[in-house]
Amino acid sequence: MLPQEGELTHMKAVSIIGATGYVGLELTRLLAQHPGVQLSHLVSQSYTGKKFSDVYPSLRGICDKECSEMNLDKIADESDIVITALPHGISKDVIPVLFDKGIRVIDHSGDFRFRDTANYEFWYQTHHGMPALNQHAVYGLPEMYRTELCGARLVGNPGCYPTCSVLALAPLVHAKAIDCHSIIINASSGYTGAGRKADTAYSFCESDSNYKAYGVGFHRHTGEIEQEISFLAGEGITLSFTPHLMPVKRGMLATIHAKLSGSYETQELLRICQEYYKDEYFIRVLPEGCLPEIKNVTGSNFLDMGLIADKRTQSVTVLSAIDNLMKGAAGQAVQVLNLMTGQDEKTGLTAPALYL
Amino acid sequence: MLPQEGELTHMKAVSIIGATGYVGLELTRLLAQHPGVQLSHLVSQSYTGKKFSDVYPSLRGICDKECSEMNLDKIADESDIVITALPHGISKDVIPVLFDKGIRVIDHSGDFRFRDTANYEFWYQTHHGMPALNQHAVYGLPEMYRTELCGARLVGNPGCYPTCSVLALAPLVHAKAIDCHSIIINASSGYTGAGRKADTAYSFCESDSNYKAYGVGFHRHTGEIEQEISFLAGEGITLSFTPHLMPVKRGMLATIHAKLSGSYETQELLRICQEYYKDEYFIRVLPEGCLPEIKNVTGSNFLDMGLIADKRTQSVTVLSAIDNLMKGAAGQAVQVLNLMTGQDEKTGLTAPALYL
Amino acid sequence: MLPQEGELTHMKAVSIIGATGYVGLELTRLLAQHPGVQLSHLVSQSYTGKKFSDVYPSLRGICDKECSEMNLDKIADESDIVITALPHGISKDVIPVLFDKGIRVIDHSGDFRFRDTANYEFWYQTHHGMPALNQHAVYGLPEMYRTELCGARLVGNPGCYPTCSVLALAPLVHAKAIDCHSIIINASSGYTGAGRKADTAYSFCESDSNYKAYGVGFHRHTGEIEQEISFLAGEGITLSFTPHLMPVKRGMLATIHAKLSGSYETQELLRICQEYYKDEYFIRVLPEGCLPEIKNVTGSNFLDMGLIADKRTQSVTVLSAIDNLMKGAAGQAVQVLNLMTGQDEKTGLTAPALYL
Amino acid sequence: MLPQEGELTHMKAVSIIGATGYVGLELTRLLAQHPGVQLSHLVSQSYTGKKFSDVYPSLRGICDKECSEMNLDKIADESDIVITALPHGISKDVIPVLFDKGIRVIDHSGDFRFRDTANYEFWYQTHHGMPALNQHAVYGLPEMYRTELCGARLVGNPGCYPTCSVLALAPLVHAKAIDCHSIIINASSGYTGAGRKADTAYSFCESDSNYKAYGVGFHRHTGEIEQEISFLAGEGITLSFTPHLMPVKRGMLATIHAKLSGSYETQELLRICQEYYKDEYFIRVLPEGCLPEIKNVTGSNFLDMGLIADKRTQSVTVLSAIDNLMKGAAGQAVQVLNLMTGQDEKTGLTAPALYL
Repeated sequence: MLPQEGELTHMKAVSIIGATGYVGLELTRLLAQHPGVQLSHLVSQSYTGKKFSDVYPSLRGICDKECSEMNLDKIADESDIVITALPHGISKDVIPVLFDKGIRVIDHSGDFRFRDTANYEFWYQTHHGMPALNQHAVYGLPEMYRTELCGARLVGNPGCYPTCSVLALAPLVHAKAIDCHSIIINASSGYTGAGRKADTAYSFCESDSNYKAYGVGFHRHTGEIEQEISFLAGEGITLSFTPHLMPVKRGMLATIHAKLSGSYETQELLRICQEYYKDEYFIRVLPEGCLPEIKNVTGSNFLDMGLIADKRTQSVTVLSAIDNLMKGAAGQAVQVLNLMTGQDEKTGLTAPALYL
Repeated sequence: MLPQEGELTHMKAVSIIGATGYVGLELTRLLAQHPGVQLSHLVSQSYTGKKFSDVYPSLRGICDKECSEMNLDKIADESDIVITALPHGISKDVIPVLFDKGIRVIDHSGDFRFRDTANYEFWYQTHHGMPALNQHAVYGLPEMYRTELCGARLVGNPGCYPTCSVLALAPLVHAKAIDCHSIIINASSGYTGAGRKADTAYSFCESDSNYKAYGVGFHRHTGEIEQEISFLAGEGITLSFTPHLMPVKRGMLATIHAKLSGSYETQELLRICQEYYKDEYFIRVLPEGCLPEIKNVTGSNFLDMGLIADKRTQSVTVLSAIDNLMKGAAGQAVQVLNLMTGQDEKTGLTAPALYL
Repeated sequence: MLPQEGELTHMKAVSIIGATGYVGLELTRLLAQHPGVQLSHLVSQSYTGKKFSDVYPSLRGICDKECSEMNLDKIADESDIVITALPHGISKDVIPVLFDKGIRVIDHSGDFRFRDTANYEFWYQTHHGMPALNQHAVYGLPEMYRTELCGARLVGNPGCYPTCSVLALAPLVHAKAIDCHSIIINASSGYTGAGRKADTAYSFCESDSNYKAYGVGFHRHTGEIEQEISFLAGEGITLSFTPHLMPVKRGMLATIHAKLSGSYETQELLRICQEYYKDEYFIRVLPEGCLPEIKNVTGSNFLDMGLIADKRTQSVTVLSAIDNLMKGAAGQAVQVLNLMTGQDEKTGLTAPALYL
Repeated sequence: MLPQEGELTHMKAVSIIGATGYVGLELTRLLAQHPGVQLSHLVSQSYTGKKFSDVYPSLRGICDKECSEMNLDKIADESDIVITALPHGISKDVIPVLFDKGIRVIDHSGDFRFRDTANYEFWYQTHHGMPALNQHAVYGLPEMYRTELCGARLVGNPGCYPTCSVLALAPLVHAKAIDCHSIIINASSGYTGAGRKADTAYSFCESDSNYKAYGVGFHRHTGEIEQEISFLAGEGITLSFTPHLMPVKRGMLATIHAKLSGSYETQELLRICQEYYKDEYFIRVLPEGCLPEIKNVTGSNFLDMGLIADKRTQSVTVLSAIDNLMKGAAGQAVQVLNLMTGQDEKTGLTAPALYL
């Protein structure tokens, strides 16, 4: 991409494909005020030609840019990085074209999250279709793959549940403090996780004051979690993952159980985690006696975690909370984008939760 | 309709057309446990052949009846009364047929709420199409038209906002305590008022933690309210009505302002209302110092009302609360059905609000 | 108690001590319309002399009785059964007196839920103080102790989490289909479970849009669940239980994990449960493919359960939903009261969930 | 105040008294990341010595400062500006002391919002006590009193309802487009407006799924609104104001009715408003057909307004939305602080609403 006249050349031109979905909105909100980014194309097939702030009036005066059509040549010409926020499978027509034109891509679908495409095909019950491209993909979790991400050409942005679960487990798996074969993860997500859909099941009347599990035993994020835990453990791990929907818009809490491999105290396990994450800005290991709550992270890119060792059952309960749209999606993508473009990883991401 | 073998002949056979919408669900919930009613057809074009309790599992064990197709001959043969819960305009193909077969009908659309079809056509911006039938229609507000309803063959069940507003104003209009030309009504409704729709605008994520006005200046219920207030006032009344959507599933509160016609005290106005409604089970005029809240009526067929006279502005603020699905729709229809079939008006309708 | 003049002698006089707490409100709502019960005393120390419907205006016209002071002699004279809804420990001054006067008592605290008072003392970190009386207590779970409850003089009404968890596990434990040493229970409750408290932690602003775990590793209900599962398993069972608070008023969902003892299919496990509960009105075992949601039970006395066997992990995930105030507290107490007084167990308890 | 060593001297030292209430939290959240401000004292009598982020863990890593005790000498020595977020009346012991020491004060109570202390005393039913000091006070509405605020020594930060109402009415009053004697304001607020209180009335269980009016006819903000509208109209105006509580945490919508003074079209009235506010960053006059919703402003300092002229009733309905904690309290205070300290008025206030 050539710099526009009058534009500061250190600004990176970023386009979003699928800009009017919920992840796209969140990306636009973050990038419209990002000091190192200039929004190039906001691609939305449903709203082409409409001002972004007419679709989302919250951004009136913040981002009044018109939504673009999907013109890959134009997008490639006018972008340094493209972020795709499309359903899995659809990216097939988009990402290879951009990649071949030398555009770096951060993808929000499940397509580039799996090292092994067969694993992807098992969990997504579909053909992968881009196995060669998949070899270039880096899993977009900065706390685990920071070095690789800096130079990545294609990033598979992690799922929200895997981000919340894997980061909470990593220190204990790494320290061999738990029996990885005993891991059971329960997690609850807000409705933004389901995206922007005209579906009665996600209507206010069906959702408010309700709570339920879904995808029990076969949620696609299970494979992604197992992949990363297996990588950390150095052996193949199978685990149980049960997601739930709770009546909040954004936020996610994972409650993770595992048998302890020795007689650890809570304090000891917390120290392992604090040490492991001592240089990570976005991970806050809470002190003993404090447990994460989603209101402390919603709207922010933080992951809060805490834990309690239970002598009676020789197990540990680890709790971790994120905002599923931020650290679980758009915030993480911006963190990755910062790495890819050599900016401070925190740029544009330091707003804390509103709490209220 | 012929009584089935073994059936108690005093049981009334009732069918619901549009049974799987939200008003239909509420009617089914109420009538499935109504001691004087036997549910005959639960007509649902989307769910024909499916058990009602598979659509709404809350009724498992309570109403496991299969949803029927729209077979008007069969419905007429097997029903004493049919309740239609269809969008306005659609009833045209249904109600005249049933009426001609001698079936009594309670209709939930706006089609039979207007004495004057021209008035209907103004507010609904559509052709009425059944003006002759409209002459038989009785407005289904028992507190105003009880006698007429007992023998009615066709009932236009009132809108939720008109029920909430008209009943709150009736005593003061009747007593000429207010200047009817000064009436301003603001009301807030829960999302069930919008019905069961796969529409992003009513999704949890767009609705939770939100509040907004809609239909400002042209909501259809305005005409219905004006019709009834004009009738009570004995002169043509034009008024201002502004509806809002609030993030609750059910419930409605109307906040009504009007200039006082004299120097009334709160206590005096309350006495007028208490006297006016002294024989009405479902209307609770609250004592001075108490104001209605929706949690006190949701789930019940009660209308709670209170008021405060304001000397500074020589006006009164009247507040009234109902459950939009109960007294504002299905509960009121059952109250009317009880009248039409000679049963105690309260039958099947005495459950109070859950409060919590 | 002597029957009042003109009173039907088969009516049972029931008093509630702690009537203006949330469980008390729910009991009052249910019993005010119960055909076999006459409410005698509604004891509330905070609201003595005030009409119940002034405290909870939802019951205006339904229960306008005045709240009584705590006069045990008078209560005993004028009650057949007393239901206590007091915090644990406080009952000490009340229940022995009533018991000695021959009044049958259903208690809502934890005081009479443990066979072994040492177990109680471990979990409640307090002295029991009434070990002799405890020997008379029956655990108030009709599906497990129906026969004993019919003649019981003192009933310890179960906790909400134990009701939700134990009933869901009972068929599989009984059939030895699961390894009871592997049970892990996660559960989420609405805020009514915390009772009526002027506590910032339970304020709307701190609770709405939030989700969190609490009491991790040491919640009192753990001991109660272990007691009943051990009884069913025929051996001492230790398990992990993690409660959460979700932003709803009422409702509870338990998500229970256990290793399977053999290679069971979902369908097979469901058949075990259906058979086990085939005569239980209040327990609805959902068909394969259906999972419980709290909106299907809130406001009702039903427990909905479903499950999924997971071959990959050789485990089963059982889900069960109740209304914590109904089957989890007041509804269950009324079910027990019906048994104790020889009435149909369902009397006054057949209302389904509102769903909306 | 002397600059600390190594501190940039253009940074302003700001202290907050009442820092752990909800307005205090919001101020702390905003000022902790404000580039021109250094937080000096966070005074909290309940949490003296505790880290702010232990009270509000959302700010862990953002503001870990310890809460201070109320030491006015120390606060005065170490602050350029003090913001008081205390209940009305309490400021009496604090503000005169600070003022006399030359510290500039922005006060959040009602004490310095009234030009006429008799008016204050009527609405607050209390003695003012600082009439001399009141003469120095400037009403903290930048859009009306920008010049005066730049040099102000004492600012009475406006109430949330007055901000929302007065700014929406100002253009029409100024243009004499409406009859100011006909103004009727209905408004709904989120629960944060009630502050942080351990009060059952504000508990989740009493508030969720509820909606109610309160303070009908005598809410204190009425006097404040009348004062400003009278000032704009150039004559004494009495109006009707009815506040409501809606089940959201933050956000406020005012629905304002007034008779038109001529035959204006919607478009014409909107042009008046757009022209009036053409230089105001924080006021967004929406185009015809768009109406404000609270989700578009919550978390931001924007006020969104729209309107509809109704020929039938010769009146206009004006709608305006703000975040009660931002433009209705803390955000507005920071906007004023920016003016007082010669910074760009938008500094630290450009974050848009989260929308989701």
